[in-house]
Amino acid sequence: MSLLTVGSVAFDAIETPFGKTDKIVGGAGTFIALSASNFIKDQRIVSVVGDDFPQETLDMLRSKGVALEGLQIKQGEKTFFWSGRYHNDMNSRDTLVTELNVLGDFDPIIPDSYQGAEYLMLGNLSPQVQRQVIERLTKRPKLIAMDTMNFWMDIALEDLKETLKLIDVLIINDEEARQLSGEYSLLKASRVIRAMGPKTLIIKKGEHGALLFQDEQVFFAPALPLEDVFDPTGAGDTFAGGFIGYIASTDDASFENMKRAIIAGSALASFCVEKFGTQRLLEITHDEIEARIARFISLTNFEMSTVVG
Amino acid sequence: MSLLTVGSVAFDAIETPFGKTDKIVGGAGTFIALSASNFIKDQRIVSVVGDDFPQETLDMLRSKGVALEGLQIKQGEKTFFWSGRYHNDMNSRDTLVTELNVLGDFDPIIPDSYQGAEYLMLGNLSPQVQRQVIERLTKRPKLIAMDTMNFWMDIALEDLKETLKLIDVLIINDEEARQLSGEYSLLKASRVIRAMGPKTLIIKKGEHGALLFQDEQVFFAPALPLEDVFDPTGAGDTFAGGFIGYIASTDDASFENMKRAIIAGSALASFCVEKFGTQRLLEITHDEIEARIARFISLTNFEMSTVVG
Repeated sequence: MSLLTVGSVAFDAIETPFGKTDKIVGGAGTFIALSASNFIKDQRIVSVVGDDFPQETLDMLRSKGVALEGLQIKQGEKTFFWSGRYHNDMNSRDTLVTELNVLGDFDPIIPDSYQGAEYLMLGNLSPQVQRQVIERLTKRPKLIAMDTMNFWMDIALEDLKETLKLIDVLIINDEEARQLSGEYSLLKASRVIRAMGPKTLIIKKGEHGALLFQDEQVFFAPALPLEDVFDPTGAGDTFAGGFIGYIASTDDASFENMKRAIIAGSALASFCVEKFGTQRLLEITHDEIEARIARFISLTNFEMSTVVG
Repeated sequence: MSLLTVGSVAFDAIETPFGKTDKIVGGAGTFIALSASNFIKDQRIVSVVGDDFPQETLDMLRSKGVALEGLQIKQGEKTFFWSGRYHNDMNSRDTLVTELNVLGDFDPIIPDSYQGAEYLMLGNLSPQVQRQVIERLTKRPKLIAMDTMNFWMDIALEDLKETLKLIDVLIINDEEARQLSGEYSLLKASRVIRAMGPKTLIIKKGEHGALLFQDEQVFFAPALPLEDVFDPTGAGDTFAGGFIGYIASTDDASFENMKRAIIAGSALASFCVEKFGTQRLLEITHDEIEARIARFISLTNFEMSTVVG
């Protein structure tokens, strides 16, 4: 099976209570592709960078099985740059700098070699760009998953609603789900949002885990209690990449398999936050992933039958 | 087995976005006893009320198997009264009125008929009163569980630490765990707090579920996603009552059984918030509890073996 990922490949500069970085490699597309590469070997990325982007990162992605024909390198232009500072609780952050650069007029060109991908992950980008990608595919993927953010709900809600009609799985956080639905109860929010198009909704709650909604079914995956969250940047994209990578590698989009995929995504995200940027994801081994998934199993496993005496 | 519960039996007046009540029956002891009564038939309560407290509530408690010899009725005095208003998100509230009344100089007298209880639940009261109860028991219970709140950390921290040395299970919320430990990470907080005495710590996270810590083991129980939270008052006490009631009725304080007890407590708490005060707990049937526990099982159940291809 093959996975097509569309998302930013970028530079970040991050400040947390644990330290700060210079410009390091980040971007939703990077985190998604790196995370998914633990499960799926045939990946294709559509994105854009400037000529300031390091060749060694491109080589690293290629070594992980990520095809780069659809990664446009704009000569004389600069890569998207985001800089932010996390507060002490790591749950909120201030954006210090956003330089759109090459992302400002991004035209997501799909190389012929990418056509026929069975799975599509649309990282957070303008809903118009996300829709263009879907429309440019000659064959609809088996499953289209998508991320978005409150920014697009503020400035491009109608565009977003058009795109939502075309996808299968929406992956957003609790605050975004509440804004998009106008409902505080996540159960109610999930119904309103799924009526907009996606049959399946995943609501990420950060350190509080994630909820999966489909028809009348609900599944809850916890987040692993961690010693420290060193840097949350990219954790949501890493979660999404683990989720879609697991689905693609098993070629099974059933509800039961989505549960496993959410555990896989949660496990990958729990590594991501242990170091700055993509650093921890680059070191990770298969044994470590297996061991962490075992911790998720023991974290939630209980045996219970009749309870009332 | 028998359960001894110590906690306030009180009046509440509650305002939520869904409505408001006059003075209705509440109090930690009431919620704990009502919740535990679904599992354990031999209960004993130590508390105090004024002569304004309704006889019908006392009769109701007795009908649920709760012995009242240790419930002091102070003639010419008034029952503890709390009034609060919940904010729109139901996660925060303002206290409007606190009238300690009979609780101001509460002397927790243990009737002889109460001695020998195998399980003890200390609802939120001053740590000095909680310690007095333990000291007045001729035989140490098999398991002592306790609730407390940030108020006592602010004004009676040394007293609280003395009491913590004597108990087995502390049940507090995440904010309280962070204040008591000085650690933001709940994993770190759990170590600091367990070093103060209790071998087992339960951290309640409201709509985000609950964590159980013992030695190197961690278990996470989700909260059920709900349509609406009508009134959160008493949910934490209902959780504690379900937990200790389940443990007492099964006479098994192993970690595996504590997992089940937390699910039982979570299920009871999910009923409590559906109506004002104790109203929903009074209507609940065994079939409803069974059905709700089945929803918890399906909410977290997944099958997963080797994952990395």
